[in-house]
Amino acid sequence: MQVIEGGVTAAKGFQAIGIHAGIKKNKKDMAMLYSKVPCAAAGTFTTNVVKAAPVKWDQEIVYNHPAAHAVVVNSGVANACTGEEGYGYCRETAGKAAKLLGIDETEVLVGSTGVIGQQIPVDTIKQGIERMIPLLEDTKEAGVLAAEAIMTTDTVKKEAAVQVELGGVTVTVGGMCKGSGMIHPNMCTMLSFVTTDAAISKKMLQKALSESVKDTYNMVSVDGDTSTNDTVLLLANGVAGNPEITEEGEDYRKFAEALNHVNTELAKKIAGDGEGATALFEVKVIGAESKEQAVTLSKSIVTSSLTKAAIYGHDANWGRILCAMGYSGAQFDPEQVDLYFESAAGKLKIIENGVSTGYSEEEATKILSEQEVTAIADVKMGDAHATAWGCDLTYEYVKINADYRS
Amino acid sequence: MQVIEGGVTAAKGFQAIGIHAGIKKNKKDMAMLYSKVPCAAAGTFTTNVVKAAPVKWDQEIVYNHPAAHAVVVNSGVANACTGEEGYGYCRETAGKAAKLLGIDETEVLVGSTGVIGQQIPVDTIKQGIERMIPLLEDTKEAGVLAAEAIMTTDTVKKEAAVQVELGGVTVTVGGMCKGSGMIHPNMCTMLSFVTTDAAISKKMLQKALSESVKDTYNMVSVDGDTSTNDTVLLLANGVAGNPEITEEGEDYRKFAEALNHVNTELAKKIAGDGEGATALFEVKVIGAESKEQAVTLSKSIVTSSLTKAAIYGHDANWGRILCAMGYSGAQFDPEQVDLYFESAAGKLKIIENGVSTGYSEEEATKILSEQEVTAIADVKMGDAHATAWGCDLTYEYVKINADYRS
Repeated sequence: MQVIEGGVTAAKGFQAIGIHAGIKKNKKDMAMLYSKVPCAAAGTFTTNVVKAAPVKWDQEIVYNHPAAHAVVVNSGVANACTGEEGYGYCRETAGKAAKLLGIDETEVLVGSTGVIGQQIPVDTIKQGIERMIPLLEDTKEAGVLAAEAIMTTDTVKKEAAVQVELGGVTVTVGGMCKGSGMIHPNMCTMLSFVTTDAAISKKMLQKALSESVKDTYNMVSVDGDTSTNDTVLLLANGVAGNPEITEEGEDYRKFAEALNHVNTELAKKIAGDGEGATALFEVKVIGAESKEQAVTLSKSIVTSSLTKAAIYGHDANWGRILCAMGYSGAQFDPEQVDLYFESAAGKLKIIENGVSTGYSEEEATKILSEQEVTAIADVKMGDAHATAWGCDLTYEYVKINADYRS
Repeated sequence: MQVIEGGVTAAKGFQAIGIHAGIKKNKKDMAMLYSKVPCAAAGTFTTNVVKAAPVKWDQEIVYNHPAAHAVVVNSGVANACTGEEGYGYCRETAGKAAKLLGIDETEVLVGSTGVIGQQIPVDTIKQGIERMIPLLEDTKEAGVLAAEAIMTTDTVKKEAAVQVELGGVTVTVGGMCKGSGMIHPNMCTMLSFVTTDAAISKKMLQKALSESVKDTYNMVSVDGDTSTNDTVLLLANGVAGNPEITEEGEDYRKFAEALNHVNTELAKKIAGDGEGATALFEVKVIGAESKEQAVTLSKSIVTSSLTKAAIYGHDANWGRILCAMGYSGAQFDPEQVDLYFESAAGKLKIIENGVSTGYSEEEATKILSEQEVTAIADVKMGDAHATAWGCDLTYEYVKINADYRS
């Protein structure tokens, strides 16, 4: 597997574009993704009872239709809590793109992100589609424009891509995502669009995606709020020409590994760009008796407001980490836990068997002052492990979210 | 039932005191509570797997011993994650007080709050006990000193008291508590000490307390972090002389109501004094199909970081409230929900059947600019309801918790 530059246009046969259509004041706010060759489509969606209209639209297509050609995304308005009117606008959006592209409306996926509760300006969106279609390109630059257009409070665009050999053929997997606030995926996360030119059956594509999100997007938490719009879409157009993957085996394993790499990179980029964040906070729980236990413990630590504030303060306040493990719901013996902090500045054992090692606070602060900080908790019960990603809690997070609509 | 001024010394036969013993630099850091007459003792404790040493000590006494006389509390150090050494210090603390008071060490409860992971300075604490015992008084002022001495990041002392007639006799219930950060009770909460001169059996006392905490302390959340030290202790010395309550009935009901009032007031004071808070945020879920559903929904809203930040910004960002209801785990129909904001400035219907009513943002902001703000969500499924209390999320919360140990 080789890491390459690029995003949704890295795989052969995918075109993209991003523009300022006029939903937001000055920033790009619409993106499109298109493959002339029909794609198998897989998706995972928010588990929130309150599902945005685009989530319902995409679920219908992914679950009940064989192929997709295009995705239309807008930022600025989430089209969530908008009732039947909002769902109607998804159909109008898809219909407009379908008509211009000469395809069926059920072959057009949609995505929205932004403020909840407002109706999308559907005329602006239709005009945006008219403008975008002639601009679609398969270049790296076009992928960047799309990645920029789906941003809301994100401070950086988020792309990742890899290549892998399948049956003697080079296959590419690339993607873009957005996500900074309301990030606490519980099934999948925010908006992420991954494309591949691999030939793979719809069934195996969905299987690979569903497995991958568990260890990637679902392990990210910025603020504990599971969004109404969480969507990961994965499109495979088969243009690479590899022998089609229709069952588990070496090729499936290699494809899944490539997909997992892209998803992990995208997930980490979301965590590191959490609203107001100054640091990526990685939490590894090792020595767990089961994967479930490791997941529960690591997510509880990475979600703890007190721990996140301590990371912001570069403060080795390890009691908050033990405390967060304790209320997670997982059973373990606190008096067996070892805890380490690690970063580019070094690694330090902070507690051993549940009590302080008498470590140097100065050294701990040095380690915690890096932009990527890892806490490793060893519960000494078995061989299972899990990694979760989050960020620190800062003044800026509060500022962004107190003022978000103004 | 009559609301009166006072706290732990409001009930007859209870003495208290608070002093600066030297654990903290300049602030009062130790308190004592004493009843010459033996008390029935009830308690509820943190469900965190990581339990502080004083929690373990108090559980042993409340569950296995018939009576208690005294409580010794320190602030500054939590005596949590301190292993066997920390538990030994609880015994030494209780033993010291017991010796000077001429009682048994199993009749002395202890409480600690502050930084996790450090050992308590047991010699300072023993000297503090020596100094406090001659100062114990049954005055209102002594109760205030005790309430002040248990504060950590609290900005105000927290007391409440009521009187009620039982069998022709006036019975008093009064209490004090502390709590500001690491507040997300799951069984009970932080440190709360309630005294009563009612005559009531230990069994009925525990029953009344266990029922009351569910609707009071357990409905408060400041930051989603369930502490290692959460403790509510209720002492009844019977000095009022009412016919002893030994079973359910009119007297038990009236006593439970009085207790509930004191606990509700104390719980609300904790929420309103949440670390860095500028507003008390009350959430009522009505029309629920079950109490459990109402509790789940109201706690999810009151805990949502995004909602709390919006309250800080006086922003009627109702989408975040519906979103928090949606990921709570409770089932309901988002398209049936009505939502209101209410405060001293008025009441406004914000959404009806899941979509915006087209309310005035200006009026909403006016309502949300008060120091006590209520959100009312009607899910229209039945008659059950629940109320949860929290606070807004502010820059100050982050500041306090990034710097807590420095």
